[in-house]
Formats: sequence, structure tokens, C-alpha cells
Amino acid sequence: MRIFFSFISSSVSFGRNCCSSRLTSRHLHTLSTKSQRSKLATVFNWQSPPMAAAEDSLRKALAEKQSAVEAQGNAVRALKAAKAAKSEIDAAIEALNSLKLEKSTIEKQLQAAVSGADGDGALSREAFRQAVVNTLERRLFYIPSFKIYRGVAGLYDYGPPGCAVKSNVLGFWRQHFVLEENMLEVDCPCVTPEVVLKASGHVDKFTDLMVKDEKTGTCYRADHLLKDFCNEKLQKDLSISADKAAELKHVLATLDDLSAEELGAKIKEYGITAPDTKNPLSDPYPFNLMFQTSIGPSGLSPGYMRPETAQGIFVNFKDLYYYNGNKLPFAAAQIGQAFRNEISPRQGLLRVREFTLAEIEHFVDPEDKSHPKYSEVANLEFLMFPRDEQMSGQSAKRICLGDAVSKGIVNNETLGYFIGRVYLFLTRLGIDKERLRFRQHLANEMAHYAADCWDAEIECSYGWIECVGIADRSAYDLRAHSDKSGVPLVAAEKFSEPREVEKLVIAPVKKELGLAFKGNQKNVVEALEAMNEKEALEMKAALESKGEVEFFVCTLDKNVVIKKNMVSISKEKKKEHQRVFTPSVIEPSFGIGRIIYCLFEHSFYTRPSKAGDEQLNVFRFPPLVAPIKCTVFPLVQNQQYEDIAKVISKSLTAAGISHKIDITGTSIGKRYARTDELGVPFAITVDSTKDVTIRERDSKLQIRVDVEEAASVIKSVTDGRRTWEDVWANFPHHTSGSSDD
Amino acid sequence: MRIFFSFISSSVSFGRNCCSSRLTSRHLHTLSTKSQRSKLATVFNWQSPPMAAAEDSLRKALAEKQSAVEAQGNAVRALKAAKAAKSEIDAAIEALNSLKLEKSTIEKQLQAAVSGADGDGALSREAFRQAVVNTLERRLFYIPSFKIYRGVAGLYDYGPPGCAVKSNVLGFWRQHFVLEENMLEVDCPCVTPEVVLKASGHVDKFTDLMVKDEKTGTCYRADHLLKDFCNEKLQKDLSISADKAAELKHVLATLDDLSAEELGAKIKEYGITAPDTKNPLSDPYPFNLMFQTSIGPSGLSPGYMRPETAQGIFVNFKDLYYYNGNKLPFAAAQIGQAFRNEISPRQGLLRVREFTLAEIEHFVDPEDKSHPKYSEVANLEFLMFPRDEQMSGQSAKRICLGDAVSKGIVNNETLGYFIGRVYLFLTRLGIDKERLRFRQHLANEMAHYAADCWDAEIECSYGWIECVGIADRSAYDLRAHSDKSGVPLVAAEKFSEPREVEKLVIAPVKKELGLAFKGNQKNVVEALEAMNEKEALEMKAALESKGEVEFFVCTLDKNVVIKKNMVSISKEKKKEHQRVFTPSVIEPSFGIGRIIYCLFEHSFYTRPSKAGDEQLNVFRFPPLVAPIKCTVFPLVQNQQYEDIAKVISKSLTAAGISHKIDITGTSIGKRYARTDELGVPFAITVDSTKDVTIRERDSKLQIRVDVEEAASVIKSVTDGRRTWEDVWANFPHHTSGSSDD
Repeated sequence: MRIFFSFISSSVSFGRNCCSSRLTSRHLHTLSTKSQRSKLATVFNWQSPPMAAAEDSLRKALAEKQSAVEAQGNAVRALKAAKAAKSEIDAAIEALNSLKLEKSTIEKQLQAAVSGADGDGALSREAFRQAVVNTLERRLFYIPSFKIYRGVAGLYDYGPPGCAVKSNVLGFWRQHFVLEENMLEVDCPCVTPEVVLKASGHVDKFTDLMVKDEKTGTCYRADHLLKDFCNEKLQKDLSISADKAAELKHVLATLDDLSAEELGAKIKEYGITAPDTKNPLSDPYPFNLMFQTSIGPSGLSPGYMRPETAQGIFVNFKDLYYYNGNKLPFAAAQIGQAFRNEISPRQGLLRVREFTLAEIEHFVDPEDKSHPKYSEVANLEFLMFPRDEQMSGQSAKRICLGDAVSKGIVNNETLGYFIGRVYLFLTRLGIDKERLRFRQHLANEMAHYAADCWDAEIECSYGWIECVGIADRSAYDLRAHSDKSGVPLVAAEKFSEPREVEKLVIAPVKKELGLAFKGNQKNVVEALEAMNEKEALEMKAALESKGEVEFFVCTLDKNVVIKKNMVSISKEKKKEHQRVFTPSVIEPSFGIGRIIYCLFEHSFYTRPSKAGDEQLNVFRFPPLVAPIKCTVFPLVQNQQYEDIAKVISKSLTAAGISHKIDITGTSIGKRYARTDELGVPFAITVDSTKDVTIRERDSKLQIRVDVEEAASVIKSVTDGRRTWEDVWANFPHHTSGSSDD
Repeated sequence: MRIFFSFISSSVSFGRNCCSSRLTSRHLHTLSTKSQRSKLATVFNWQSPPMAAAEDSLRKALAEKQSAVEAQGNAVRALKAAKAAKSEIDAAIEALNSLKLEKSTIEKQLQAAVSGADGDGALSREAFRQAVVNTLERRLFYIPSFKIYRGVAGLYDYGPPGCAVKSNVLGFWRQHFVLEENMLEVDCPCVTPEVVLKASGHVDKFTDLMVKDEKTGTCYRADHLLKDFCNEKLQKDLSISADKAAELKHVLATLDDLSAEELGAKIKEYGITAPDTKNPLSDPYPFNLMFQTSIGPSGLSPGYMRPETAQGIFVNFKDLYYYNGNKLPFAAAQIGQAFRNEISPRQGLLRVREFTLAEIEHFVDPEDKSHPKYSEVANLEFLMFPRDEQMSGQSAKRICLGDAVSKGIVNNETLGYFIGRVYLFLTRLGIDKERLRFRQHLANEMAHYAADCWDAEIECSYGWIECVGIADRSAYDLRAHSDKSGVPLVAAEKFSEPREVEKLVIAPVKKELGLAFKGNQKNVVEALEAMNEKEALEMKAALESKGEVEFFVCTLDKNVVIKKNMVSISKEKKKEHQRVFTPSVIEPSFGIGRIIYCLFEHSFYTRPSKAGDEQLNVFRFPPLVAPIKCTVFPLVQNQQYEDIAKVISKSLTAAGISHKIDITGTSIGKRYARTDELGVPFAITVDSTKDVTIRERDSKLQIRVDVEEAASVIKSVTDGRRTWEDVWANFPHHTSGSSDD
């Protein structure tokens, strides 16, 4: 399973204040770390401990049986060579055959063990996926882009029903988040100048490791090749020893933590070659996943297609804070295209080169992460998968969100609030709540600055897929852009009355420093001023006791001697009228295409046709999501009925309900099947000029409604103002023969 | 004025069937020709004939008066030198002063004539624009992108209210076009492989001419420099002769028809240098306006960010036609980002490097361009500017759309239908119908294949701006992609019974051709088969009379001799069951950003504050477009009122109405002013726990409504189900002092 967000493998270290604090292990924004992938593999794709133990002992048993078979074979041959008695030889052969049978039984058991849940389960998942994908492609939910030119890997179009679903999902997202939370929505360009993505770290670190076929130049993702090799070996080669199997599993588990050198060494060690040609491969090297371009005609302004939408919000923080009346907390949101130039996209709609993200950046005072509407979600209960459960090999369990927050499993109320809101959003769309879990990042898969991080994962035929990431990223992003741009991105809390605070004051004595360090004076001054409180107080103590101290100035890359008369360090009391700070940001980030794909899978089912001769496809989309809310069928081709259908169509249009008239002469059953396959929840059949039937897709139940009332009934049910059950209870039922045949 | 769509200057000629038909003067899709710009300049920016005549005679009068002044000056000097009588000298000086006065009067008149409507008018337009733009930037309707990094020319963000307006405009577009017309909406990627844009012609021809500062390398648009030079000369240098003025005007009029060589020659002739440095300039050369990138890691698959969304629809024609039940007509639509790497963007929000397009491709049988809903728009009357009126120097006039179609001014019903629908769309958004006109393309600004073409132009402070293009592009685009991809993009009309048709049959006799041309046989066969009917019949006649004929085979680049036994050409009668043809496409293409900018200008006005001490800004957005539909104010800071405000807010949210609570202690007048400046149409002031006032933005009238009813009244008015007038007539009026102060 590869997951939505790309990752950064190595710990990235780039100091900001070079003198006093060295920052290590930084990770990029919305890019879960590669180690996350490895942990996922460790925890979920790996067999549970008893399964692993069984496999291990089976491998050993198989090796022993193999030796026994060989020994017995030798024995038979020896008997034959020695012209032993026939009865003796026969007995030996019988023993050999029996050993072979036992070996074959163990082989089968081992085969079953290594394929584990991926045995029959994988086959039926594959078949299910194929059925869904076939329906989606045939009914133009999506289309491989530029198909008449043989397409481009990782690019897909949404056809008419897919486009309508997407538009409904985004509309609901706006209603559920932007409108209900009064978020500030912005809309920034995709073309982004280099400086912005340099500050965010993408220019330097947004990479995957790649190898090239040394003869043809074809590119592969290095980790994919190694992963495929290990999986293939483990599943198909039963002869490998238990030790070898353990080694390969260890490689899989640590795959994403491997450096370029380590990956290259493994590829060499295992003799992995280019899959298509068997040619040797180059050493792995990093490939930046951003689409690069050039802004303006000069060729001197490099730019990239944004890999996420969040940076557009961060760079606007100052204006947005002002727009919000200089008050925290507030959230900004953005829906838009993002781009990642994948090396070799696999997994169809889940791993694409261009996709729609919907991102929220909720800015909050780091000292107060409560949320005023938290109580509205505190009682929700759903599948959560905290860190501890993952580490101890347990599985996700139903937890009350309020408990998770109060027990400190979820770091703070605001993070908890968004987890709850995301749960409501996804389940209202039609995601099955039994196949949705919130998984907490393990300590070592989070960036060092992150306070806590949870992924909404949805289970589909590809496994558990990360569809929404909800992270408390602390002040990292705003600080990075403050530093690079020189524009302070901060908030202030005004005190109702001034407060007395003790402040560290470092006052370099420039005259003395100038005498001592001449041209290097400025570097020394800056280094002194950049000391943090601890460093400064240590220096103060040392100067007081020894009169001088060695001090490393990193911009000079050497130690200098600081004397007592060169700097005054003191703590002073000051009156302050406000507290200035960099806000923390809590970021829910939605992969819209992934959510839609999972929704397709969760909504799909088949049922037999009335004649029982075929399986019909149905998407059980809720009205909110359905691409078309209603179909209108004249029962037979007849001018009167067509006119009524047009009248109804007009009132549906006026009510803003997307619908379709089907006046083909096909049987009503066929027309129902066609509309079920598009997930249309309601069908109006015109079989009289006075009243009509309305059929509900999943129950196939029908009611009779006056022509004039038809549109408003549909509207009330698709708006969610009444349920089908309610309608069913209040209108006459229709039971005649115009139904599904 | 530079207009939205970029243009192709030169006539583009690329033959498709190299043997029999040579296509000339092809133009690219949705790219109006550069000649359009010149015609626009000719017709609109130029003075009307009487104005031009006046300027001409003034220039001549000025030159004469200048000579007279000089002559009289000489006379005065001569008298002084000759020591003439003082009275004589005084009289001569008086005459000189009188001549100077006359000259100065003529100068003023000429100054007024050359600046024409651009004199005081231009100044006030500039001031008006500044007021609008200041308000838009201050209230974050838009923000220069990446501002903290000093921005990037031609890239803008929509801030919260701008983003809401955009979302409302797009929502209404979907309702008005996609839903009401049952269009097939698609959503294709921005990243586009080269082959697609090669077929469309963009790779080769989507260029502007550029010059470089030879020392600094700074790039300029060649035509901009020449245009600026001519305008500057004409407006500021009153000393140029009438002939010179005529020449400069001619250059302006033909600016966009100039080839690179001609442009370069003019730049040299006029001694134009780099504006910033006065350095010499390079020769003009074409710069492709697409952002280029590379798809995948190999560097071998060039791609571009799409310059328009239409190609995504064309390449999907086959699937969409099938989805529509293999029936014509049908329309597909797409909303999405498009990208143009402008050389040096000017004109703020009107000329940007990334923008949102909404495009419709309506596919229709070229033999039947009627439209079933045409009668719904036929009675509309609005400003139209047909070709003939432009050529004869008249202005746009109110025409009934139905008349324009029936008189053949508009080519066909479907084109007329879309013109009407675009008119309704724009005026319902709030575009002033007196500043909206539909201008027909002149014959020579249309691509040769286009049947007819009209632009919806909106007048704003920059002049008349092309915001929507509505073109009947015939079969050009589908044919181009059929040819390049080899996939037939055609439709078929099934005949109810087979029809007998006469068909040309060209049957090359391969054996004879093989003997005569050996290895070249294939080229000759293909060339013979590619002949059109006229060519084939001429060959048949020649073969019959002379027995042989010379024939040019372009793939061999030489003539060959075809003998009678080498080919049989005949006309045969055949029964056909269907007619296969390439559909025509009628394409309305909307520049959403431009429409929104014009809407901002048309909606903006100022009015004095109650105290009369300042001018307050108001955007008179209709509720449909308004970024926020309603503000809720507790009259005074008071828990009871705040609670009521929250109750109302909750019901507004439930009704899906975007709104804002303002509980700041500011005076109610200030709060009204703030909300007027965002274009919020309604404000609810809570001044009791039983009923509240609702104030309408433009009339400032207030009614009293029960707390429980407030949200539903707002909803009915913002939905358009009732008007403010209706509400005003049915609720008690509020007249007390809580109003605007």
C-alpha cells in the first residue's frame, strides 16, 4: 500500500539560528515522513505475531522435510545400487513418497501462511475492485486523460457523473467546514515562485529515490523495486530459509528509512535488475517530485506547480489575521489543484500526478487550544487507533472522542474537534463508519515540531488508505516563512492591564568588541545576541567567576574569547502591554480524489435482475453526493406522458435539482438498471397525467404522488429535510407492474 | 486596451492533406487573431471621423500659426534692427503676441482633440479605478500573490470575500448553463502532454513577439513598446505634422498585423530603446506563452500547463457522444485553471498568468443548427455591434436578438441562443446592461474555418473588455485531433431508410503502379486516393482525352506521369444507411476573472456618511453574488442580544446562508459602513429579544421581523423567491434612531 501524501525519508537538519540552536530532524509540511510508511507496513501489512511464528516454524519444518526427502532418496538409490531385496526397496520408496507428501502438505500450509489475508481475500478484493472500476469507466465517472493519444500515467479526467460527485463533495465540504465554522477561504495560484517552496523545504527535500535502467534510461522508484523483489521472494519462493525470510521482512519493514546508499547496496546485493529489460540499474538518486517551470520570459525565475495548497495560506497569514480583526483563533481554507510528478504512478486513482486538495489551517494561541464548539463532537464514538495500541500489536477500537481528549490520547480540544468534524463529514458523504479509522502517528513518524497527528484512514480494496491528515504542526510553517521573507508572521494578545515580566537583556559593549575583534565585531555581536536564556545565563556565571569565556561564533566558524567588559547580561523587569507570539496551526488536509474513490467502493454493490439472469450494479450514493438526484421516465413513448415529464423536469430545474429525462423506448426495468448504475437515488415514472410514481433506488419501493407535488417531494428528500421512510409513511404505495421489469 | 485572449499574429498555414488541399490562414482555437486587436483599435480607440478631421486641421492650423509667429518674430527683430518708430515696433509686437495667443489656443484645442475622451474622462476613470482597487485590496477581495516575497507579476490570490464571489459566480454558471441545459461537465488535468497541444496548434503558434534589452536581458513585448511610443508621440508631442500623426495612427491600427520583421524595422526606424535603461533592443522574436514542464522523471516527455480548458473536451468527444446515447446536439462544459506565461503582464486583474476559464463546447450537426429553446431568448433586446456597423463607423445599438438571427446578422439559431443566454447570465450577475455589448468579429479577424463569432464585451475603466467569446468554430478542432490521433471523432445520422448516393471511387491499379514506380508505389497510391472530387474528375477527363497526365506527389516532391491503365476513377451509386460527419462546435468561453473584475467596477459606488464628513464605499452586489448574504449585529454589547444573535446565526447556517456576526462595540453606523463595503445586502440588528430590524444595503430601508422569522425572510430574498420591495410592502417599517449613525 502506498499512501496519498509523499514522504521525506531522511531527517532533515537545517539550522535557523546558527549560533545557539541547531534544529534537527525537521520534516516537511503535510508530507508525512517516509518512516510512517514503514511503520504502517510494520503494523498492518505484517502478519500478526502468531501468524509470523507459524510461518517461521513451517519454513523450518519444510527445510527439515526437504533434508529428510533427500536423505531418503539417497537411501533408496543406495538400496538399488546394492541390489537390495525388492520388498526392502519398495518399503524405502514408500517411506520416500510419504515424506514427499508430508513436504507438499507443509508447502501448502506455508503458501497459505505467507499469502495470509492476501490469499483468497486478495483475489476477491481484486475482483471487487475490477467490478467497481469497470463500472466507473464505462459510465464515465472517470476517464484516463488524453485517451485518444494513449494517455499519460497518473492523469485522469472526471467524466460527467464523476464531475458532479466531485462538485457535490466540494460543495458539502464548503458548507460543513467553511460556512459552519466561518472560515476565511482563499484561492491562490498553482504557479509558485521558487523562494516560497525553498522556505517550506520542498525545493530541497521533496524527493523520492530513483534508479535508471543503465541501457534504456527507463526510470523506476528504487524502493518499489526492492519492495517488489522482497514480496515476490517471500510469497513465491518457498525454499528460502526462515533466516532469509526474516531478513527480507526486515528490509520491507525498514524500506522507507533506507538512505540512497543503503537502498543501492541492497539492490546490488540482491542482484535486482530493470524489470522490463533485466539490464543493470544505476545507483539510487533523489528526484524532486515537483513539476518545474519558468515564470516570465527571461528563464531566470524558476517556479513550480504547487505540491500542496497550504503555503498560499501561510504567506497570507498577516493579511488574514488583520481581516479577522487581529483575533485568534481563526481558520483559513483553500480548495485547489496540487501537482506531484510521480516517478511511476501505480494504484490508479489513488496515486495521481494532479489532484484536488482541500486544506484548512486553523491558527490558534499555543497557550490555549480549547475550542468553543468542542462539546458538539465530544460524545462521538468511532474507531480510533492510538499510538500505544499500534505499538502493542492491537487493532483499532471504538473510543469516545471526549475520553480520548480528556485522557490526553488526543493532544488538545481543537485537534479533537477537527477529528470529530472530519468523522461527521466523511460518514455523511457515505463512507462506511466500520471501514473508517483515525490512526495516530507514531512518535517517530511525526515531524519533531508536531504536537500530535492523526490520519483518517479509509479501508478499500487497496487496504487502509490515508485520506485526511489532521496535524497540530505548532508554529513551524509561519516561522519558516517569517525567517525567509523577513516579514513577522505573529499574533498579539493585548493585556487588559500591563504585566510585569522578567526579561533577559544581552547588551554587547560594541566599543570593547570592536577593539578586540575589529572586522569580525558584527559577527560576534550577532552571535551574542542570538544566545538563548540558558546559554546567556551560563555565560554570565562563567564571566562572573572566571572573568572570560570561550565562545563559538558559527559565522566565523571558530571560538573567540569573551571578556567581562565585552557584554552585560542581566535580567530586567519590564512592563508589557501585550504578548507577541507565533500562532500554532492545526491542519486538516483532505485528499478529495482519494475520498471520492473510497466512496465509490463503499457505495458499490450488485443485485440480481428480476429475471435473475444477470447481476446489476448499484451505487448507493446518498442524495447529497449522487451525481444526478432524479430521473424522469415516461412509462411508454407517448406525447402526453412526455409533456408531463417535461413539466416535471422544468420544476426540478427551477428547484435546482440535477436530473435527466429518459424517453428511450427501452423497458422500464432496463432504464431503472441504467439509473441505478449511476447511483441516481430517485426515479419518477410518468404513467398517468394526474399522478406519477416515485421509486427509491435501494429499497425499490414506490409511492404515488400528484404531478404538481413530484418535484417538491424530491427536493425535500434530496435536501435532507425529510427521509424516504417519512415519505413512504405519508404517500400511497404503488405496487402495480410498472416496477423493475 | 489589451484583451483577455491572446492572439496569433500571422496567418498560419499548415496543410493537412498535402496533395489535394492546402489550408491557409488557420487560426488557433479560442485565440482571437491579433488582427482583432488592431481592428478594435481602429474602430474604438481611434477617434470618430469628425474628431479625426478636427485634429488633422488643428495640426495644420498649428503649423501655419507657428510659421506666422516665426515670421512676425523676424519682422519685429527686423524693425528693431532698422530702428523703426516705436509705434511701429509696438504694433508689430502686439501682432506677435496676438499670434502667440492664437497659437496657444490652437494648441489647447489640439491637446483636447488628441486626448479626446481620454482627457478629463481618462483622469476620472483612473481615479474611479483607484478607488475600486483600493477598496478591493483593503478588504481582501484580492491580494497580490506571494506578497511577503514581493509578489510575482500577473499572479493574484482571491481573499475571503473575493473567493466567495468567485464561488457564487461559478455556482450560478453551473446552474444557468450546466444544469439548465443538461450539459456534460468534465474535469481534466492542467498538465497536458505536448502531442495534444501540437494538434491544437499551440506548440507552434501560441506566441507573442518579444524584444530584449541587449545589455540587461530584460524582456518586453515588442508591440507594447511600439504602441507606447506612438501613443506618447501623438498625445504629448504637438509639434508633429499632420502627416506624421497619420503615419503613427496607421501603425497603431495595423500594430497586430505586423510581422516580426516589420515590427523590428519600425522599432529601429523610430529609435525605440529599452524603457528602463535606454539600451538598444534585440530584433523581435516569438516567445511561446505556455508554461512548459516535463512529465515523469525521464525528461523525455515535454508537457505544458494548459492555456485553455477546451482541448480536454475535444479529446473526450468520442466517449461523451457515446455517453449522450450517440445523439446530437449536446454540450460539454468545463471549469478550470488555465495558464499563460505573459511576457510582461499589465492591467492588473485583467491580464494574469493564471486564471479560471469556464468553457462550453456545444456539438451540433452542421446541417441543422436550430436550437429547441431558441424561442426563450428570441425576444431579448440588447446592445449588439454587428460587423457592418463597425465597418461604417457607427456604434453598437439595441437590436432584438430574434431579428438579428432572422436577418442573418447572427449566423444561426444555436449561436443566437448562446448569445442570449450569456446576456442573461451576465446581467443577472449584476453587469450593467448599458455597459455590455455583443461585438461581432470582422471577417478578417475570424479564423477561416469559423462560421461566425461574437464577443461579450463589458465596459470598465480600462475600456471595452472581451469577457466572453462565443464562436461557431465549425469542425476544426475535432478534425485536428482526429488527424493527429488517428481516432475518428465523428457522429452519425442513421437514416430511417437507406438512401442512394453517388460516390466518387478512386481505384489505383497497384500492379501497374508497382511496375512503373517500384519503391515509390505507396506514395503515388496515397496521393491518388487523397484527391478531392474536382481534382479526380479533372484527371479522369485528362486521362480519357490524352491517355496520360502529370501528377504532383508531394511526399516525393516531384511530378510523375500517370497513365490511363494505372487508375480507375468513376462515380458509383451506393445505398447508405447513415451519414457520417464531423460535428460543428459552438463555443462560449468565459474569462471568469475578467467578469468578476468588471462586476466589481459595475457594483461600486460611494455615498456620503450621515454626518456628511466622508464618502463611504458600497458594492451593490445582488444577493446571488454577494460574498456574505447577511450580517448580524447586536445593537449594544449585551448578553441577551448576543444570545439572540447566536440563535439567528444558527438558523442562517442551517439555511445555508453565509453570514457574519459583528459583536464589536463600534457604533452601528460604522458597522453598517463596514458591511456595505463588503457588499453585504442585508443586516439584522438585534435591538430587542422579540423582534429585530432587517436593513437593506442600497435603500437603507429597515423593516421589523420576529426573531424566529428573520432567517427565513433573509433566505427567501437571497434565494430570489421574493424581492425586497415585496418584503418592504409586507412588514412593519422601522424608523427609529438605530439606523446609520
